[in-house]
Amino acid sequence: MTSRDGFHWTPQTGLAQGVPSIGVISPATNVSSRNESWDVVVVGAGYSGLTATRDLCVAGLKVLLVEARDRIGGRSWSSNIEGYPYEMGGTWVHWGQPHVWREISRYQMRTELEESFDFSRGVNHFQLRTQNGDTIMSHEDEDALLAGALEKFVNVDGDFGRKIVPYAHDSFHTAESRQYDEMSCKDRLQQINLSLTPNERAGLESFILLCSCGTLEATSFFEFLHWWALCGYTYRGCMDALISYKFKGGQSSFAIKFFQEALSTGNLSYVFSSPVKAITDNSDKVTLSTRGGKEYTAKRLVSTIPLNVLNSISFSPPLDPQRALATNIGHVNQCVKVHAEISNKDMRSWTGISYPFNKLMYAIGDGTTPAGNTHIVCFGGNNNHIQPEENVEETKKAVESLAPGNMDIKRLVFHNWSKDEFAKGAWFFSSPKFLSTSLDSLRARHGNVVFANSDWAVGWRSFIDGAIEEGTRAAMTVKEELRPIGPPRVRL
Amino acid sequence: MTSRDGFHWTPQTGLAQGVPSIGVISPATNVSSRNESWDVVVVGAGYSGLTATRDLCVAGLKVLLVEARDRIGGRSWSSNIEGYPYEMGGTWVHWGQPHVWREISRYQMRTELEESFDFSRGVNHFQLRTQNGDTIMSHEDEDALLAGALEKFVNVDGDFGRKIVPYAHDSFHTAESRQYDEMSCKDRLQQINLSLTPNERAGLESFILLCSCGTLEATSFFEFLHWWALCGYTYRGCMDALISYKFKGGQSSFAIKFFQEALSTGNLSYVFSSPVKAITDNSDKVTLSTRGGKEYTAKRLVSTIPLNVLNSISFSPPLDPQRALATNIGHVNQCVKVHAEISNKDMRSWTGISYPFNKLMYAIGDGTTPAGNTHIVCFGGNNNHIQPEENVEETKKAVESLAPGNMDIKRLVFHNWSKDEFAKGAWFFSSPKFLSTSLDSLRARHGNVVFANSDWAVGWRSFIDGAIEEGTRAAMTVKEELRPIGPPRVRL
Repeated sequence: MTSRDGFHWTPQTGLAQGVPSIGVISPATNVSSRNESWDVVVVGAGYSGLTATRDLCVAGLKVLLVEARDRIGGRSWSSNIEGYPYEMGGTWVHWGQPHVWREISRYQMRTELEESFDFSRGVNHFQLRTQNGDTIMSHEDEDALLAGALEKFVNVDGDFGRKIVPYAHDSFHTAESRQYDEMSCKDRLQQINLSLTPNERAGLESFILLCSCGTLEATSFFEFLHWWALCGYTYRGCMDALISYKFKGGQSSFAIKFFQEALSTGNLSYVFSSPVKAITDNSDKVTLSTRGGKEYTAKRLVSTIPLNVLNSISFSPPLDPQRALATNIGHVNQCVKVHAEISNKDMRSWTGISYPFNKLMYAIGDGTTPAGNTHIVCFGGNNNHIQPEENVEETKKAVESLAPGNMDIKRLVFHNWSKDEFAKGAWFFSSPKFLSTSLDSLRARHGNVVFANSDWAVGWRSFIDGAIEEGTRAAMTVKEELRPIGPPRVRL
Repeated sequence: MTSRDGFHWTPQTGLAQGVPSIGVISPATNVSSRNESWDVVVVGAGYSGLTATRDLCVAGLKVLLVEARDRIGGRSWSSNIEGYPYEMGGTWVHWGQPHVWREISRYQMRTELEESFDFSRGVNHFQLRTQNGDTIMSHEDEDALLAGALEKFVNVDGDFGRKIVPYAHDSFHTAESRQYDEMSCKDRLQQINLSLTPNERAGLESFILLCSCGTLEATSFFEFLHWWALCGYTYRGCMDALISYKFKGGQSSFAIKFFQEALSTGNLSYVFSSPVKAITDNSDKVTLSTRGGKEYTAKRLVSTIPLNVLNSISFSPPLDPQRALATNIGHVNQCVKVHAEISNKDMRSWTGISYPFNKLMYAIGDGTTPAGNTHIVCFGGNNNHIQPEENVEETKKAVESLAPGNMDIKRLVFHNWSKDEFAKGAWFFSSPKFLSTSLDSLRARHGNVVFANSDWAVGWRSFIDGAIEEGTRAAMTVKEELRPIGPPRVRL
C-alpha cells in the first residue's frame, strides 16, 4: 500500500508525493455500526498510541483508535521501495532501551536487527568538511575526535556528567541538574571554547545538532546531558544506542506487530485518515470530534497528539495554563532527513560531516540497495534549514556537497516533518528552561484525558522507547481505573 | 508474615530458621471449590512465574499458580527485619536491563531505587587480603586494579570482546563465540597469566567467582564474556549493572506488584506451600500432581522450575534426552551470601576482597541499619564452600576475616541456597560446553508444557531481568494459542 506521506525522487520519475509502506492500513476503518461503544478512545497510532491500544485491548477493554494519517507509526515509519526499507523518521534501536527491547524480545524480533555501519570494504573513511577545508581521516580518528570533543563538552563535574545526571531515567534527580537546563549548548560551548580545536568544534557542534536538529542557542544543555547519560556517558555508547542498529525489514515491520496483536483480541476498532478537531470532557465521558464531523465517545481518552500539534486541537475544558504555554513554545527539532541512493559502492563505508556551510551536515553509509548501490542517510536541521521537496536541485546539491565527486544520486526519499501538519517537527528536543518548567505539566492528566507521548517521557524521551514507555503508562492508568471490580481482595 | 525460608542469627537469639518477608502469601490458597477449572497452570512464583501469571491473567485467561514455598520470589526475595530489608538472593537492578526496567517504570517505582555504595564518609577504602598480605587502597585504585585486570581477561579480539559477542541479547551470534564456551575461566587465566600482577590476579579471580560462585575450572569463559557484553564491555558498566542499584523497600516490594496485579483481574487462583511431584501431558490437557496428593488440570502448563531442580520432577512423557542431560549437569552456582550487621559505622564505605584463603571472598558496605550500624553483604562460592547455618562460628570467622578487627557482628541473615531443595543453587552460571550444547533444548517446549526460567533466558540470563524475559515469552506463547478466535481478520 502507498501512504500519502513522504516524497520520492528519481531522475526518471521526478518528484512524487507518497511512498509505499507496510504501515498503511486499508480499509481505513473497521467501524461499521453507528451504535458501537468503546471504553477508551486512543488518538494517534504512533508507538505511544499503538502501545496504549494494544495493552488496553489485551486487558479486555474496547478501544477505538483514531489516526489522522493513512498509516501507523506517527513520526517513526519506514517506506519500502523496490524491496528496500528507507526509514522516514526514527530508525535505530538498542537493547539498552528498555521498553523498545522488551517489545522486540516479546515479538521474537531480536535477530531481525542489522547494523547501519559496514566498514568492511570501500573507502572506509570519515570526511570532515569545514570552512577550513576538507579532511579525510580513518574511522578510528573520527571516533577519537568526536569522543575527545564530547568529553570536554559534558565534563561539568569531573565525572563526565555522572554526578549531575546520575539516574538517566529520573529527570532532575539532582538539584544541580536544573541549572544546566538554564543553559543552551551554545552557552556551554563558550565555556570550553579555548580547549577545542577547529575540527573538534565542527564535529562537536554538528553532533549536538544531529541530536537536536535545532540551533545551538535553542538546544538545552541539560537535555543533551540527559541523552549522554542514557547512552552510558560515553561516545561509543552514543554511537551504539543512537545510530547503529535498525530493523532489517524496516521499523514498520515492528510497529505493525502492536496493531496486529490489538486487532487479534477482537477489542479494537479503528478509524484512519481522520484528523481530530476537538476533545470535550463531560466529566462522565469524553467526546472526540473529527474534522470530518464524526463524534466518538468513551469513558477515557488517551491523547498521543505530539507537543507541537497539541495547540491545534480544541480542548474543553481548556488545557491548564502551563501545558498550554508549553504547547505554544513547542520543541525545537526541525530535522531534515534525506535518503540518497548513490551509484558509488565504495561509499558504503563512508561517513561525513559538512558544517556549518552545508544544508545537510551529517551523513553515513547506511546500506546497500537491491541494485547494489549505496544508501546514504543525511541529516540537516534548523540551523541551516531546507524544505527538501521545494527545490530538489538544492537538496541534491546539499547531498553532493557532503562528498564532492562521490555522490552520483539515483534516488532521493524523504518526509518533510516541518511541513507535516500532524507533526510540525521531528523527534522532541527542548530549548533551555523548557523541561524544568513544563515536563511535570505535560505528564499530568486532564480529567478523563490521559496524555502519552515520547515528547514528555521520563527515560528515552524523543525515542521510540519513550513512546512505548508513555503508551504503557497511559494504558496502566486507564486499565486500573476501568477494570471491573474483582472478587474480594485477599489480605497479602 | 514470616517465611520458613532463611536464617537469622543474633548474639541474643542465636540461630533461628525463618525470616519475615512481605512476599509471604497468607492464606496459602484461594482455591475453595473442587470444581474450579483453569486455562493454564503456572508452576513457580519467582519472577518468571509471576510475570507469566500476570500477563495471562490480564489477557483474560484463568490461571492457577502453584508454588512449593510459602512466598513469592523464588531465588530472589527480601526479608524485612526491624524495618530494614535484607536481600536473601538477587538484589540489584539497572535501567539497562530491559525487562526489569520496563516493569519498574510501569509500576512507577523508578524513584524507589537507592545505591548500595556510599563513599561519602567513614573509612572510604578497599581492603585486599591475599596470601601475600593485606593492602589498603582507595576506591579509585580498586577500580583501576579491577578494570585493568578485566580488560586483559576479556580482550580476546583486540576490542575487549565486542567482536566475539557483538549482540549481548543474541546467543552465539558469531561462530567464533562458540570456541570460548569450550574454555573455562581457568583456561583463559592461564593464557594471560604472565601479564597479571598478583593483586590483579586475586582481584580478577574473585570477581569471576563473584559472578559464577562456582570454581574457575567450572566457569564458562563464554558466559563470562556474555555478562561482560551485557554490561557494555566495561568494568564500570559491570559495577553499575551488577551491584549498584537496589529497591529501597527490598525487592519483594517489586515482586508483590506482579502478584497483586494478577489477583486484581479476578482470574488468579493460587496454591502456595505445595511442591510439585509430577507433570503429565495427556495431549489434550496437562495434569499436575503435588506431593500432597492434589491434582490440577489445565490446557497448558508453564513450568518455571529451576534447572537444578527439574530432574526431581516426574514428567510424562519424559523430557527429551538433551534436556534431561542438561538438567542432570545443572549449573554451577553455589553462592553463599551472608548479610552481617556490624557496629562500626565507618565501614559503610568499605569494600573488600579476601582471596583465596577465606570462606567469604567479596564484600561491600551495603547500607546503614535502623540501629545506625553498618550492613555488610558478603559473598562466597563453590571454590571454598560453607553451609553457613551448620557452623555459625565458622561463618562469623569468615566475615571477621574480611576486615580483621573491624567486624563486630551484631546480626547475620542468610539463605542457604545449596541446601534449598527448590533451588539447589543460586542464580544460573554455566560450566564450559553447557550453553552451546543445551541452551536451545532448554528453551524448547514439551507438548503442552512451556518452560520459562532465567536459567535459559537469552539476554540477562541469571538475572531478574531474564526471569521476566522468560515469563513474558511463555505468556505470549500460551496467550496466542488459547485466545478466542476473534472477528474476521482485516487485510493489512
